[in-house]
Amino acid sequence: MDLSEKTIKKDIIYSGKIIEVNLQTVKLPNGRESKREIVNHPGGVAILAYKDSDTLFMVEQFRKPIEKSILEIPAGKIEKNEDIKVCGMRELEEETGYKARKFEYIGKVVTSPGFCDEYIYFFKAEDLYKGRNDIGDEDEFINVKEVKESRIKDMIKKGEIIDAKTICAFMMI
Amino acid sequence: MDLSEKTIKKDIIYSGKIIEVNLQTVKLPNGRESKREIVNHPGGVAILAYKDSDTLFMVEQFRKPIEKSILEIPAGKIEKNEDIKVCGMRELEEETGYKARKFEYIGKVVTSPGFCDEYIYFFKAEDLYKGRNDIGDEDEFINVKEVKESRIKDMIKKGEIIDAKTICAFMMI
Repeated sequence: MDLSEKTIKKDIIYSGKIIEVNLQTVKLPNGRESKREIVNHPGGVAILAYKDSDTLFMVEQFRKPIEKSILEIPAGKIEKNEDIKVCGMRELEEETGYKARKFEYIGKVVTSPGFCDEYIYFFKAEDLYKGRNDIGDEDEFINVKEVKESRIKDMIKKGEIIDAKTICAFMMI
Repeated sequence: MDLSEKTIKKDIIYSGKIIEVNLQTVKLPNGRESKREIVNHPGGVAILAYKDSDTLFMVEQFRKPIEKSILEIPAGKIEKNEDIKVCGMRELEEETGYKARKFEYIGKVVTSPGFCDEYIYFFKAEDLYKGRNDIGDEDEFINVKEVKESRIKDMIKKGEIIDAKTICAFMMI
């Protein structure tokens, strides 16, 4: 069965700095009409950054939508027209202060395909060396943490890691 | 370092059927101000539904934001005031036609904490039996698939499964 939904009408609700929201009227497979509320997002990158063979750099960051600080792998939004690998290397250095001699693409996910078009592209960074000294950007405050890879599964099961992209990254290696 | 951001001002941009969008002015840890675009979402459930010890029910569904059909575990939005376990059992039956005698909570994630407050709560469903015969609801069209659990990791690595919640679920068991 072809499950696709054709757009009949699209109204832009909000064009923000990062997201855009639109409301679409679609034709369903049975011919009826329905509405879809859609958030457009530029997409992001996330990096499994190995300090050594069994230690990862992770970042603790306050996330306003959920009103708490959580532990995540380094990540960030793709700038307009930015190549995803360039973006990944930039975010790694901005968030951890490190650059990588080995930087490999390992896969992608959609974070919430029911209402949002955000893709996240994953990289594995190895053979790191010190880059810039200041961490974060003008409105981003970060605590860098070192975490043993052997603890990750347990931290996920205990709810100490709840960030979806972070959890996904460990299924890609 | 306390990384929290205090809300100074909050403007509702859009109140839709499923999502709400607001723009907040926040006070950063360094005392400066910044803006945060936030999408509020009611949250969802997702279910690892075992037909037998090594076979899962999965669903193929067209996702308008990304304009393609993808393979996911059964999942759905939490209705207003709905208990998450009740929601999980309802969605399992709506999307697969099955009910479960064993239905266990296994964890939660945030899908995209940089701009959205959506949590997804995971359940493991076993000892399934046939419930209703019609699958999907009035604006939801679904193909039910059976997938061997032993193939999952490979399907993720090959990009045949790109849905973040689906990938996360397999790190919780």
